[in-house]
Amino acid sequence: MKIGIIGLGLMGGSLGKTLKKIGGHEVFGYDNQETVMLKADMLGAINAPLDETTAKDIDMLIVSLYPSSFLSSIERFLPLLKDGAVITDFCGIKRKTMAEMKELSKKYPNLIFVGGHPMAGREFSGIDRSVSGLFEKASMILTNVNADIFTLEKIKAFYLTLGFSEVVITTPEYHDRAIAFTSQLCHIVSNAFIKNEIASEHFGYSAGSYKDLTRVARLNPKMWSELMIENGDNLSKELDEFIENLQKYSVALKNGDRVELEKLLSEGNERKLLIDTKNKK
Amino acid sequence: MKIGIIGLGLMGGSLGKTLKKIGGHEVFGYDNQETVMLKADMLGAINAPLDETTAKDIDMLIVSLYPSSFLSSIERFLPLLKDGAVITDFCGIKRKTMAEMKELSKKYPNLIFVGGHPMAGREFSGIDRSVSGLFEKASMILTNVNADIFTLEKIKAFYLTLGFSEVVITTPEYHDRAIAFTSQLCHIVSNAFIKNEIASEHFGYSAGSYKDLTRVARLNPKMWSELMIENGDNLSKELDEFIENLQKYSVALKNGDRVELEKLLSEGNERKLLIDTKNKK
Repeated sequence: MKIGIIGLGLMGGSLGKTLKKIGGHEVFGYDNQETVMLKADMLGAINAPLDETTAKDIDMLIVSLYPSSFLSSIERFLPLLKDGAVITDFCGIKRKTMAEMKELSKKYPNLIFVGGHPMAGREFSGIDRSVSGLFEKASMILTNVNADIFTLEKIKAFYLTLGFSEVVITTPEYHDRAIAFTSQLCHIVSNAFIKNEIASEHFGYSAGSYKDLTRVARLNPKMWSELMIENGDNLSKELDEFIENLQKYSVALKNGDRVELEKLLSEGNERKLLIDTKNKK
Repeated sequence: MKIGIIGLGLMGGSLGKTLKKIGGHEVFGYDNQETVMLKADMLGAINAPLDETTAKDIDMLIVSLYPSSFLSSIERFLPLLKDGAVITDFCGIKRKTMAEMKELSKKYPNLIFVGGHPMAGREFSGIDRSVSGLFEKASMILTNVNADIFTLEKIKAFYLTLGFSEVVITTPEYHDRAIAFTSQLCHIVSNAFIKNEIASEHFGYSAGSYKDLTRVARLNPKMWSELMIENGDNLSKELDEFIENLQKYSVALKNGDRVELEKLLSEGNERKLLIDTKNKK
């Protein structure tokens, strides 16, 4: 296929490298920073620039930018695309871009719009950190706008060739609600955890639990703040629920109430067991 | 060496198996549950039972029990031990057992008391889950009572042979303050996180950040509640500081204040970078 990528950061760059590695595709890329374009070329993430000429033959256009840049970045290319071309965004929240895609699908009924969220990432950002194996064993989430079931199956199959272990189709609303918990809240927790005063001391040791918990404290603040504010309704609900639960442990500790603390820990323990069992099925 | 182990659970069992695997030691074990004694024998975690006869030749006695059982479990063996025998507990908090060891060292001045906390573990407990590689690349923390520097060096060297990557010597007070954050708080966070209502839904996907964050939600509630209540002063301080920091994110989200949220995320991001750099040195 001929694939266009707009935005050649960690995600877009990794996508280009992955496509080039699995072969059988031609990759055309665009980034508004000239140095990134040069790097994408040097690192072999693209075959050629995506421009007014190359856009005409594109089968699939993937936009890997912040939600706020999605619309403005594709407007120039949409009138050039051939009938049946598929447009997908890679934004980490889906309600905003799906609403925009819905509007676009009315204006360009011959184009196919399907939202996407590759649940892969690294603690780093930028094309320098992009890698061809980024999607290995990750989940790809699709939110459909106007694709028929056969096209959707083709798109699913395409993403599986990139290394994703599963492709899940859901609604933008459910996606944003779930992601507020499974991804965004994790990042806030990790980012806030590292702020405890004692964290800056060098212990000469750290447990595995600490390493796991603080891994995603490192993040791209510009991108995440946009995604989180855009999903603020869901995220603040999840965050407040979490704080409320934490406060119960705090009360038990202050009361020296071992029975209550053991009960709280048991509840979490059993819940984790149950959820893991359910997810294995 | 001849090594006695009291308490043959996950830790004690893993210690026995590790000692047997590296060789050169004779392992004598004691557990107050007969089925555990039988399993320890069958699984090859011990050479023979630790009893009134075998205790006499022990060079090192390691107690791998809850803090509340430490004192009562060793009293019967202490009068039997030979001069210079080393007694170490494996409790996850150190102030309580160190105070007890200090008293014992007055009563038994010819015995050597050194507290220990192997910073290794699994989400499971019991001898069935014990493994010989449990201490691989983990940190061992020692809190000294009455060992001279040469003996302490010998003990350090011994633990390095078990697979530990480092042995750190510190005070019980500092250990408990640090561990409240690096280990206990992580477990509470993970255990509380999984309680959000939405966690019980099966998404068909989950991000790496979610997997990392919920790993230690599964824990031994009986053991952890004892360790946490015993360290309640330090732990509740750390927990409250964390909750306070989380609340700042909640406020920014509710106000839709992207500038503030980006600032909060940047602070966490930079702090994580700084700490990682410091810890690498």
